[in-house]
Amino acid sequence: MISIVVIGFGNVGSHLCQAFQNAEEVALVQIYNRSEISLPESLQAIAVTHSISGLAKADVYLLALPDDIISEFSSKLPKSDTLVVHTSGGVSMNSLNRDNHRGVFYPLQSFSKSRKPEFKKIPICIEAEHHSDLNLLQELGESISEKVVAISSEERGRLHLSAVFVNNFVNHMYHISETMLEEADLDFDLLKPLIRETAHKIESMSASNAQTGPALRGDTKTLEKHLHLLKDSPYKEIYEQLTSSIQETYGKKL
Amino acid sequence: MISIVVIGFGNVGSHLCQAFQNAEEVALVQIYNRSEISLPESLQAIAVTHSISGLAKADVYLLALPDDIISEFSSKLPKSDTLVVHTSGGVSMNSLNRDNHRGVFYPLQSFSKSRKPEFKKIPICIEAEHHSDLNLLQELGESISEKVVAISSEERGRLHLSAVFVNNFVNHMYHISETMLEEADLDFDLLKPLIRETAHKIESMSASNAQTGPALRGDTKTLEKHLHLLKDSPYKEIYEQLTSSIQETYGKKL
Repeated sequence: MISIVVIGFGNVGSHLCQAFQNAEEVALVQIYNRSEISLPESLQAIAVTHSISGLAKADVYLLALPDDIISEFSSKLPKSDTLVVHTSGGVSMNSLNRDNHRGVFYPLQSFSKSRKPEFKKIPICIEAEHHSDLNLLQELGESISEKVVAISSEERGRLHLSAVFVNNFVNHMYHISETMLEEADLDFDLLKPLIRETAHKIESMSASNAQTGPALRGDTKTLEKHLHLLKDSPYKEIYEQLTSSIQETYGKKL
Repeated sequence: MISIVVIGFGNVGSHLCQAFQNAEEVALVQIYNRSEISLPESLQAIAVTHSISGLAKADVYLLALPDDIISEFSSKLPKSDTLVVHTSGGVSMNSLNRDNHRGVFYPLQSFSKSRKPEFKKIPICIEAEHHSDLNLLQELGESISEKVVAISSEERGRLHLSAVFVNNFVNHMYHISETMLEEADLDFDLLKPLIRETAHKIESMSASNAQTGPALRGDTKTLEKHLHLLKDSPYKEIYEQLTSSIQETYGKKL
């Protein structure tokens, strides 16, 4: 049995707590949060503390905290043999205070309060200074997910950068479309099957094989039409830049 | 029963043929293709012609042709009462020759040879000069899809532009990530659950509510780290531009 204290009850922390609570091999012994929190039904039995001095003993302290406070918070923890891990894609393991065993437990997903994640399918990227800690994190990861991979801080940084493209930037593309359709009094729902198919397609083919559209075809007439529609839009430059990038990628310069 | 001749057996044409063949209310009487084609098992019974003079009579001629030849091809068709429609998002109805009844039958989806589309869920955007033709297209659309909407050429142009953002540009984001991970010897599969979730999220929330990430948070440290990783990358400018655009959209300028 792995005992764990989850520190921070935001999006990542709260979803992880519920996943650990359902995992047979894990004992969620306590939740730390700086301010008051209201626990969901399924976590009512779990102890809560608001002070570092009140932290329970455990095998793992899991810091589900904003990037910019991870380092400082870790330095306030009591010195012990506890393994201290953070859950961030963008923070190196070495940002954690060196007085404790250090590690990372990064679930590669974008969490929202209102959506229950399916942890089984979420890759857990782990890292640890000591081999025995890596084994512990492997076990902890496997208690909630089918995919646990050991990844260095440098690799994680690149993974996180890629995640920005496929999540944050992709979502911004959705936002741009939504805005444009709203202005034209058209229903964004019309695009949802296309959005779904675009995401599903790359399950079975590479993105380069899945690429289509006027930029790839070198279809000047359509490109001009679109730029005309965008002439007063804040998104015109994005259209131009992504069109150029597609054409450079596939070697079809106009 | 609506009789139809499908002209052009590319991605759109071939998938539509199979959908119409399965639709009870539709008689697919013939397929035209300029060059030789090999029909799949399910279409073996359908007549094929390679010449315009050999076209069978039908209620509807459906032109599933590349944008740039639609207009010219339509002018070669015999003058009759047949309704001639094209399937393009980016071409106006008036590009069709005025000697026949004109219309549009645009399935809003991105088709690939290797993937069987689920037509039931694909919006069909229709347009026609004459009210009776619009009714005919409505019926034809409903024979294969649950969602048929009448949309003007101008609206369709805007819809098509939006589709470029959520399909072509989104797929380019996937490609950029795939390339970056390949270079770092990391498995693109790690990102697939995130890609799926990003697309599924906007089924139940607006894109602006779903936005997350360092650009939105104004997380300068992470942004700088990412730009450093991208310093020799052809995708650095895209990162910068989309980051700025997200910050302008949500009013968080750095």
